Amino acid sequence: MKYGIAVFPSKDLQDIANSYRKRYDPKYAKVPPHLTLKAAFELNEDEEDDMINQLREIASTSNPFTLKIGKYSTFHPVTNTIYMKVTENEDLFALHAKLNEGDLTIDVEHPYVPHITIGQEMNYDELSDVYGRLKLETIHHEETVDRFSLMYQLENGAWSVHETFVLGKSQ
Amino acid sequence: MKYGIAVFPSKDLQDIANSYRKRYDPKYAKVPPHLTLKAAFELNEDEEDDMINQLREIASTSNPFTLKIGKYSTFHPVTNTIYMKVTENEDLFALHAKLNEGDLTIDVEHPYVPHITIGQEMNYDELSDVYGRLKLETIHHEETVDRFSLMYQLENGAWSVHETFVLGKSQ
Repeated sequence: MKYGIAVFPSKDLQDIANSYRKRYDPKYAKVPPHLTLKAAFELNEDEEDDMINQLREIASTSNPFTLKIGKYSTFHPVTNTIYMKVTENEDLFALHAKLNEGDLTIDVEHPYVPHITIGQEMNYDELSDVYGRLKLETIHHEETVDRFSLMYQLENGAWSVHETFVLGKSQ
Repeated sequence: MKYGIAVFPSKDLQDIANSYRKRYDPKYAKVPPHLTLKAAFELNEDEEDDMINQLREIASTSNPFTLKIGKYSTFHPVTNTIYMKVTENEDLFALHAKLNEGDLTIDVEHPYVPHITIGQEMNYDELSDVYGRLKLETIHHEETVDRFSLMYQLENGAWSVHETFVLGKSQ
């Protein structure tokens, strides 16, 4: 089964992201707006319980963190993606590290850039136009994140949340 | 904010439901296949923490239950909905009752019929045709449900999972 780990931010931030995703993100209907903590990975279902125990342990020994958005950015020319850039943050990077080391190590192609995607697989003209406008905008959003979600992917490509893990709390 | 409480069944059952929902359910892209435990309700966000504490208490004092599907059914002529009928079950009804009494009471229009929707808002000809075929089919599916999810609704109508609650376990 294919799994992924992400943070779903507040309704306010999800609504802002969706106002762009609706037009610019072909995965709009497959998953709500999110901050990926661990990219999609394959795992046998019989290993799921072990992983969940690890995730509970990681959550209980991690701190809630501040999710701060200061601007929009793009991964172009690597991919034609526009995203809300999440300001770097020690607690977030510590959590990301714990979710991607030891038994949870997976091969990743790029260094971790925390972000919330608002457009992807855009054609170049559209990306230039939209990003040209957004890079002039400032966005000031700050919220406390106190949980992350383990999801699995359905056959149609949509993601279903299997379990949420509250940070900094023994469960 | 608008909240709802549901069970997301196994990937296998969700994939079967989606094979129909894709064609017959206009809410296909808004939420994965689910068994509703508490219909959508409005709640002030400042009451969310109290509700979550109640849900944790309910989850820890409830039993996992067997989700058994034996046939397809329809709510026609009340609504043009086709669903997988969930076999009645004492633990499921007990959980549903706890989630809909006391502080959690909401007005509901119909008695509780546990189901997983696979088509809704269908025109009559389509409903007759599809249900005509499905009512001749038997479906034997059985799984253990050990969790439920609290969701909230985004502005675009999609649902985002806020927290999952594991049954029969102090959290």
